[in-house]
Amino acid sequence: MRILIAGIDGYLGWPLALHLAARGHEVGGIDGFHRRRWVAEIGSDSAIPISPMPERSSAFQESFGEKLLFLEGDLRDYKTLERIMRMMNPDAIVHLGEMPSAPYSMIDIDHCTFTQTNNILSTLNILFAMRDICPNAHLIKLGTMGEYGTPNIDIPEGFFTIEYNGRQETLPFPRQAGSWYHQTKVHDSHNIAFACKIWGIRSTDIMQGVVFGTRVPEMGDDERLRTRFDFDQCFGTAINRFCAQAVIGHPLTPYGKGHQKRGFLPLCDSMQCLTLAIENPPGPGKYRVFNQFQQVYNLSDLADIVADAAKEIDIDCRVHRLDNPRIEAEEHYYNPQHQHLLDLGYIPTEDIKTEIRKMLQDLSRVRDRIEHRRDLLIPDIRWDGTRHRSAYVDGEE
Amino acid sequence: MRILIAGIDGYLGWPLALHLAARGHEVGGIDGFHRRRWVAEIGSDSAIPISPMPERSSAFQESFGEKLLFLEGDLRDYKTLERIMRMMNPDAIVHLGEMPSAPYSMIDIDHCTFTQTNNILSTLNILFAMRDICPNAHLIKLGTMGEYGTPNIDIPEGFFTIEYNGRQETLPFPRQAGSWYHQTKVHDSHNIAFACKIWGIRSTDIMQGVVFGTRVPEMGDDERLRTRFDFDQCFGTAINRFCAQAVIGHPLTPYGKGHQKRGFLPLCDSMQCLTLAIENPPGPGKYRVFNQFQQVYNLSDLADIVADAAKEIDIDCRVHRLDNPRIEAEEHYYNPQHQHLLDLGYIPTEDIKTEIRKMLQDLSRVRDRIEHRRDLLIPDIRWDGTRHRSAYVDGEE
Repeated sequence: MRILIAGIDGYLGWPLALHLAARGHEVGGIDGFHRRRWVAEIGSDSAIPISPMPERSSAFQESFGEKLLFLEGDLRDYKTLERIMRMMNPDAIVHLGEMPSAPYSMIDIDHCTFTQTNNILSTLNILFAMRDICPNAHLIKLGTMGEYGTPNIDIPEGFFTIEYNGRQETLPFPRQAGSWYHQTKVHDSHNIAFACKIWGIRSTDIMQGVVFGTRVPEMGDDERLRTRFDFDQCFGTAINRFCAQAVIGHPLTPYGKGHQKRGFLPLCDSMQCLTLAIENPPGPGKYRVFNQFQQVYNLSDLADIVADAAKEIDIDCRVHRLDNPRIEAEEHYYNPQHQHLLDLGYIPTEDIKTEIRKMLQDLSRVRDRIEHRRDLLIPDIRWDGTRHRSAYVDGEE
Repeated sequence: MRILIAGIDGYLGWPLALHLAARGHEVGGIDGFHRRRWVAEIGSDSAIPISPMPERSSAFQESFGEKLLFLEGDLRDYKTLERIMRMMNPDAIVHLGEMPSAPYSMIDIDHCTFTQTNNILSTLNILFAMRDICPNAHLIKLGTMGEYGTPNIDIPEGFFTIEYNGRQETLPFPRQAGSWYHQTKVHDSHNIAFACKIWGIRSTDIMQGVVFGTRVPEMGDDERLRTRFDFDQCFGTAINRFCAQAVIGHPLTPYGKGHQKRGFLPLCDSMQCLTLAIENPPGPGKYRVFNQFQQVYNLSDLADIVADAAKEIDIDCRVHRLDNPRIEAEEHYYNPQHQHLLDLGYIPTEDIKTEIRKMLQDLSRVRDRIEHRRDLLIPDIRWDGTRHRSAYVDGEE
């Protein structure tokens, strides 16, 4: 298949390009390198050094024997998007090209409005380009499990059938997102479902859990093929942050009670799932939703798993909770369904600890790069609009 | 109370200013006169001539003895908004300042992306300004019944309690909006509910039905106090369009089967309801939803009511359905609840025909202005992305 990856320079976009190329797909990508700039803006950098795109491209070609079609450009600019769509005429578009950080979107009004316009416009542009250039293509859109929030009932995969006042109906499951960023994913979901309805576009909307990991097999030993790894308060997800903390002897820092439950999956599982979605497109006009994660963990348990894995490779670390900068439920029911991908053949990684051990080993080699930015491990962007560093919950550190 | 009306120059904004001033409230407004420009852009004009703001202001002052605080400005510009918020320190902000047309948003990618960014940014700016300047104020936000779509079950007022897999939960009612414009109202609803949760802002989100009418009592005989009346395919709602058609002997044109059901309310009822919401604010952090309409009609029945009312004042007209330019259910269940405003004391106008007769009389006086733009009564903006004029469904006209 011809597959266009929007956001190919990102944490997921790059390994996906490798994974799809290894499976014989023709891969192209567009990226404006915003992620590199956003991370620099908040004073951070990828823990694992990443190569500039020309080097990535060369290594890609050496590994897979095919040239990577790449266009530098902003998804908010319709003309650029149109150009690559016409060049490629893709069978599938994987949209990973959004601003992905909740705390970044909560910094202030400028970051909020940037996030909302950036994400909404990029998706609208893709939808219009699909309508006019490749109406039979399949849009695989990265959403987030965070769109659902934490309701006190099971979370279905996008839709549920309910009875209300004696009548039955199948409806989209209501979204209750917890940040300006998460709201954009909700807005996108609504816009995409509508485009499928009026224009017959086919789409898979991926409600993905929190991804962790440093590598996929297709990278081999080529340093130029590595993907980025963020650990700062904005772009580092909880488990990536825990691993970065572990290798520099920093306490692992769940927020608040640490009983928040989330779905998680290793990077290689994310690649496997996205590939299943891509290779099994829905019919025309069909809007389907996959809940994409391997397992639900609560954050404190996950910190303990990281601490245990660290111990096995002789790293001693402890868990120390921080005052929660977010406004979110810290004790809640959480039972999201996730059958669709299993039905398509997804084989979840069962041995999480081995995955985490590999991450810790990779990160140990770049310990200095993390240590150097140690300050960025404690959050100061708060959901109430103020800005100050979180304190440890039970005593000084 | 000190009440700031965003979009004070519009169809609802202007009569609301008069209605609130007559009740002794201190009224201020902000408007960028976009509505006047959008209507001009599509080649139309208000059927009823409206005065420029300086004349409106003078008439306002003569009528109510108070100066109208007015600032010309774009709600997307935070600085302007901040300025009037600081000048007024309002108790309530009524947000009527969005692009309100479904067909306009469906013209092309530029109109879609303009509509989405304009509406989302204006609401986000208001939320941030409230947080920082008047956190105890009450946001009354104009949404639309169209946010809900036409599900096959009763539509509650914003939230419903359901059972799913043996557990019970109260959730936002899922939104399934039918145009890029309607989607913006859904996005706003999500953003506002989130702001209430994290910042303690109080808000009433008004899911309003289709409003019709030409006047409110506070206008008296002062021509300078009249509000606009649009009848074109973009800014004219179904019933306003029917009345405009009636006075020039044009067939009344429901789209498709004409069995689409919607909630409707007279302009004076809209004023009454908005005032009830303003004068009865919710508590801090509370996000409440009112379904605001007088009665559900199907479009063909409504066309017949207009035809009957026209007959009584010796205007002969007939109903002739048009090929539907929209993609929407033409036969559907529709039972939205609307108890909240009745509980606050809303007394619905029962005598719709008298209301319509008044409209027809008002419009008869401006017959030439409608006749002159007769072409704009037949839609050509289509939901499938093409553009051509709708044909009559059962034969030539």
